[in-house]
Amino acid sequence: MNLSCLFNPGSIALVGASHSEHKLGGVVLRNLLRLKRRIRILPVNPKFPSLMGTKAYPSIDEIQGRIDLAIIIRPAPEVQVILEGLAGRTSCALVVSAGFAEAGQAGLQNAIRNAAREGGIRLMGPNCMGVYNSATGLDTFILPPDRLPRPNAGGIAIVTQSGAVLSLLFEGMTKTDMGVSITAHYGNAADIDESDIYEYLENDPGTEAVISYLESVRDGRRFMKRAKALSEKKPLIILKAGKGAAGQAAAFSHTGRLAGAYEVFHSILTQYGICEAYDFEDLMDGALALSTQGKGRAEDRRKAKETGRKKQKKQKRQKTSKGNRVLVLTNGGGAGVLASDECMRQGLTQPAIPSSNLDSLRKKFPPFYGLGNPFDLTAQGSGKDYLTVLEELGESYDGFVIIALSAVTGITPALAGILEDFKKRADRPVVLHTGQDEVGKELVRAARKAGIPSFATPERTVRALEKLLSW
Amino acid sequence: MNLSCLFNPGSIALVGASHSEHKLGGVVLRNLLRLKRRIRILPVNPKFPSLMGTKAYPSIDEIQGRIDLAIIIRPAPEVQVILEGLAGRTSCALVVSAGFAEAGQAGLQNAIRNAAREGGIRLMGPNCMGVYNSATGLDTFILPPDRLPRPNAGGIAIVTQSGAVLSLLFEGMTKTDMGVSITAHYGNAADIDESDIYEYLENDPGTEAVISYLESVRDGRRFMKRAKALSEKKPLIILKAGKGAAGQAAAFSHTGRLAGAYEVFHSILTQYGICEAYDFEDLMDGALALSTQGKGRAEDRRKAKETGRKKQKKQKRQKTSKGNRVLVLTNGGGAGVLASDECMRQGLTQPAIPSSNLDSLRKKFPPFYGLGNPFDLTAQGSGKDYLTVLEELGESYDGFVIIALSAVTGITPALAGILEDFKKRADRPVVLHTGQDEVGKELVRAARKAGIPSFATPERTVRALEKLLSW
Repeated sequence: MNLSCLFNPGSIALVGASHSEHKLGGVVLRNLLRLKRRIRILPVNPKFPSLMGTKAYPSIDEIQGRIDLAIIIRPAPEVQVILEGLAGRTSCALVVSAGFAEAGQAGLQNAIRNAAREGGIRLMGPNCMGVYNSATGLDTFILPPDRLPRPNAGGIAIVTQSGAVLSLLFEGMTKTDMGVSITAHYGNAADIDESDIYEYLENDPGTEAVISYLESVRDGRRFMKRAKALSEKKPLIILKAGKGAAGQAAAFSHTGRLAGAYEVFHSILTQYGICEAYDFEDLMDGALALSTQGKGRAEDRRKAKETGRKKQKKQKRQKTSKGNRVLVLTNGGGAGVLASDECMRQGLTQPAIPSSNLDSLRKKFPPFYGLGNPFDLTAQGSGKDYLTVLEELGESYDGFVIIALSAVTGITPALAGILEDFKKRADRPVVLHTGQDEVGKELVRAARKAGIPSFATPERTVRALEKLLSW
Repeated sequence: MNLSCLFNPGSIALVGASHSEHKLGGVVLRNLLRLKRRIRILPVNPKFPSLMGTKAYPSIDEIQGRIDLAIIIRPAPEVQVILEGLAGRTSCALVVSAGFAEAGQAGLQNAIRNAAREGGIRLMGPNCMGVYNSATGLDTFILPPDRLPRPNAGGIAIVTQSGAVLSLLFEGMTKTDMGVSITAHYGNAADIDESDIYEYLENDPGTEAVISYLESVRDGRRFMKRAKALSEKKPLIILKAGKGAAGQAAAFSHTGRLAGAYEVFHSILTQYGICEAYDFEDLMDGALALSTQGKGRAEDRRKAKETGRKKQKKQKRQKTSKGNRVLVLTNGGGAGVLASDECMRQGLTQPAIPSSNLDSLRKKFPPFYGLGNPFDLTAQGSGKDYLTVLEELGESYDGFVIIALSAVTGITPALAGILEDFKKRADRPVVLHTGQDEVGKELVRAARKAGIPSFATPERTVRALEKLLSW
């Protein structure tokens, strides 16, 4: 089943369209009229011949021809009949309305699921905001852009059961300048669920990495299969909420789906090598880390295509790196100690500097540099010193935590270029922690352009590296 | 032993003063000349009769009278002789110079400790930046303010073994607009250590809360005694780094002190009821949370003083709250689930809404509100709804997590006033998570003024509440 009727429809009926942006049906109509591509928009409203300058239809029966996507914003008790009317000529329906399982109305939800199934309609929702596709501008959200700013276009897909978490994600992505490809808020998941969406995203060309928030899974076996398949092609990072009793009860009242035993879920994810976030911040940091890596690989694919080596493009993406040997390279002792503590908590090892390299490094540095791991360049450390260490030790570690506190004069934004060169040569993950002064901010920007993500604390930097090493 | 010679000296000799701000001895002299209060500054330099417009002394022997604080910025091998020259007429010496135990020169460090002891001098350092006192402007740091901006004056004292962490703390405090009272970076701690500083801060009137970063403790028994005594008077939050083998090795090469077994340390802190941070971010969040509470209590004390009830002022501050029953009140389901997960991880309970309150609340709210815990006002929730719930349930919980996603129209900055009124009446901790749009930012500012701290994710908000409940 291909969900392009949902994510890339050629025609959209909006049942419950309104002339007023004070109503949900008006907000969504306004969004749809902002589309970047030519898509037939068919507002349905019995009272107005046109809405916002677009011809309206008094009922769905008046619409000629096939409808790819029907968006339904009508009170819950009306939805079943509307779906029955769309049977046979609609590929996909998005039910925005609430008032189903999450409000104790499981019967109503079963009824609309059955109506959709019998009518050959794939159903998203109910109780959801639907889809935002940055490539086409498709936007079914009931919150206008001035209340919920959409992030820039980019390579990260969002799959979320919760609208609140969607708004947190959008805020976080905007703040860190991450770009979104497709966003899907699927709510109660009466039919279409995370597994369907994962399957679609496997082959979505605009999506380089996927972040997924979920509280519950209906078919655990199918979920794991789809998550594994997606994760083998693109970075996938999952935040499973509703871990404890209170969280599970909250998740149930929120989407009407039961959150299963978390321990089982967690151990299967680990076993399948699927990346899991500890909490919301970890999800955002992981997304930033994985998206910078994805970019590099996406470029590899583009180049392969340009040079005609199309076979390479079709190859399954191999999981990257490998191993867990980390070098922490710092210009501040305490920051290095904090990073080391987090390496330990994350199960990353910090092997000592190989003795074959020690003599050579000792000759190049003043005696007060700390030639351990963390490797401490002290406040005297310069960009050149970072280069010296990385050139000497680049082969001996699987990932590199670079701490460059910018309060000292040795650190300039030029360090980004040094790290970029090293990363290209070594082809191993490099993550950065620096200061928040002007020098630090400029370094962060330059490093980001070079595919090296930065994080606000030493520990968050290590956690992000762990995600890169485990994908 | 009172350390006011260190934190509030009346006279300061600067051995190694320089005319150039390109040298450490010039940076510190410039800092000292910015002092807000009249303190005798006595630069020592054999080559210049005056430095930066201030009379200089060719040697320490030329200085008449007693010296409260001697700052020494000379190469390590010279320091012992300098201390011997100061014997008998100097209360305290701050040795900024590195090149002692952290560089394998334990003998040199023992020699200066003995010289100080025999000369009746308390010694801070070596290998440290010393003291910043926002009340007087005393500033011995070797980094100029344009490289390391000092935070505003305020109630938080910083006690740190690491200079790198000090710079992280200053950045973080500046960003979240937290104010600092006294900052002490004590480095190798040959003599003065965290225990001495804790003891001083117990009675420092400008300090309302203390955050402390440490890697190692020399005298564990004394440390616990002083930490407990301080913590009984003021909020104290400790980040112990060097928890694992790699971290401990790094801590040793960094300050030359051995980091002990973390598990023992952790269990004793817990047993003594001393607040511990998980990582750097947790330390910053905890500081923000505890400082807002401290402010409230500091005002209570001021009022008590004004009304003449001085007895109250002298009473030992009692540890605040109590109990771990948390209400999560949200307008976004998923954000509430994330908060619940963190409550579980932090050992906080979320009892259901008492049945005696349920009927009353049901009558006041639409049927789709989720009357559980989390209490879900949905995207329809308004400031008035928050008030209704808090008035009804304020007595039934020990702490309140308020989640007010600002992408919906019901949330305005006026919510801060509602929370402030409630907090004053209930006298229980309230913490906030909101959005980062303009409405959210204004709400954060207004709430902060009202003594209600905000945090960037639901989970961090819960962790901060846990600190408030455990202090």
